[in-house]
Amino acid sequence: MSTDDADDLIFKALSHRVRRRMLDALKAEPLTTGMLCERFAELDRCTVMQHLGVLEAAGLIVAERRGRERWNHLEALPVHAIHERWIGPYAAYAAGMLARLNQRIGVEPV
Amino acid sequence: MSTDDADDLIFKALSHRVRRRMLDALKAEPLTTGMLCERFAELDRCTVMQHLGVLEAAGLIVAERRGRERWNHLEALPVHAIHERWIGPYAAYAAGMLARLNQRIGVEPV
Repeated sequence: MSTDDADDLIFKALSHRVRRRMLDALKAEPLTTGMLCERFAELDRCTVMQHLGVLEAAGLIVAERRGRERWNHLEALPVHAIHERWIGPYAAYAAGMLARLNQRIGVEPV
Repeated sequence: MSTDDADDLIFKALSHRVRRRMLDALKAEPLTTGMLCERFAELDRCTVMQHLGVLEAAGLIVAERRGRERWNHLEALPVHAIHERWIGPYAAYAAGMLARLNQRIGVEPV
């Protein structure tokens, strides 16, 4: 798979707000598929599993099987790679400072 | 516009490989629309301008008019916000270290 193809999968996965919220939930701690179904109670189990499949195919989560449970972990590296691609280590400090400044003066976060 | 709507625009904009390459070009320096048309010579001017419009609507570039020229600047804050959302300052060091380790041992970058 080319880098372009891999990136297509990543940004397609991130383009759905439910999948972004699933990553938000997994940022704090790994969760089983059952726990995610409880948190996203408005979706049926099949839909939750489809979303997890899209996130896993993009490499944004890693599934770990323990017995009958499937634990879903957030994989930080693709998100880190997005940052490296367009900001990189040298501009990161400036971008962080600007974000905090905007917050202090009350500019809407982007 | 809700944060979800704004994020939809950002990830929709990033989901097209041509638009990602435009941001790559703008990472190094701001470019006029004419310069971008030369770099993306396989596309007609109208298509280049459409892609720039999608990037601008998402807040990923900012256009600055100087006389008859339009200079396009990369806007780092939305990319910074993606990083903050799922990695945050505390995990950034670990993610950077892991990315460099993967590179040294020859794991495909994600």
